Amino acid sequence: MALIILAHPKSDQSTANKTIIEELKNSGLDIEIRNLSELYPDYKIDVKAEQEALLRHQNIVFQYPFYWYNMPAILKHWFDEIFIHQFAYGSQGDKLKGKNFVTSITVGGKENDYQTLGKHRFNIDDFSKNLAQTAYLAQMNFIKPLYCHGTSLTSGNTKDEVTVRAKEFSEKLISKLKSIG
Amino acid sequence: MALIILAHPKSDQSTANKTIIEELKNSGLDIEIRNLSELYPDYKIDVKAEQEALLRHQNIVFQYPFYWYNMPAILKHWFDEIFIHQFAYGSQGDKLKGKNFVTSITVGGKENDYQTLGKHRFNIDDFSKNLAQTAYLAQMNFIKPLYCHGTSLTSGNTKDEVTVRAKEFSEKLISKLKSIG
Repeated sequence: MALIILAHPKSDQSTANKTIIEELKNSGLDIEIRNLSELYPDYKIDVKAEQEALLRHQNIVFQYPFYWYNMPAILKHWFDEIFIHQFAYGSQGDKLKGKNFVTSITVGGKENDYQTLGKHRFNIDDFSKNLAQTAYLAQMNFIKPLYCHGTSLTSGNTKDEVTVRAKEFSEKLISKLKSIG
Repeated sequence: MALIILAHPKSDQSTANKTIIEELKNSGLDIEIRNLSELYPDYKIDVKAEQEALLRHQNIVFQYPFYWYNMPAILKHWFDEIFIHQFAYGSQGDKLKGKNFVTSITVGGKENDYQTLGKHRFNIDDFSKNLAQTAYLAQMNFIKPLYCHGTSLTSGNTKDEVTVRAKEFSEKLISKLKSIG
């Protein structure tokens, strides 16, 4: 039902992403998880395996932490290797057409910091036009991204607070996945 | 004088990026080029060497092709590894303060396609807010990005046309570097 592309360099050591993945596993949803950094520590991505996984699912979820206002490198590499001509775009590149493109992003900083007068000056939607347009070119349905703010342990959040926040967020994500079926 | 961070997975096989690098080498400017994909085919970046290179220069130029409305993965990895706490940001993270952040991006598609009613729906500036904000957080001067459009050989451009375009573009880049000194 849903393919979860997990792109966290060290998901075992993470709090938010690890919690979200556990909640997804316990949700009863029919999901397949691909942990990119665990599968490809050397960045040598198995293109065929990844493309076949995409073809098996209607909902494609990108689960990752926001690094430097952008996705982690392993996910960018995945897009460059997998979303290729005549698969994701081009005259015969309609293999992903009609699938749902879901982004679920954990953001270290507070939501308040992501606005014109805030420390980060833009909101996450402003930083995510590349995602919307990638989905569009691949003829996928771009679902409004889900953001889990305040997940950084170095910014004064305790592990317990982040875990609670990630659990609450997971409910929204799970409910979204159920609603788009 | 200028550090050129070249981020092209196969710059030897490229037309535009290879031409721009050659023009920079022949420009008489005092430059240091770091070819990331050649230096780090396994993505294991030497953090100390990269940070020391940054400290040697006033102008930092990011030279790369636009892939999926974003930078190539090797450059994203470079940012995540090099722009770290207490180097690029944080209470003592002022090591890059006042340096010029210059982006020089080759874009396969035509400029006309990058507008609201075009195939790519946004212009490149819209896709580049992460760059502006990265520079801002590192207290660097964000120089208005330079784009070289129409560099894709698979979109009906000949190698000669792309080479001419890249040479004309290089003149603008070189003149910009001279003007910001």
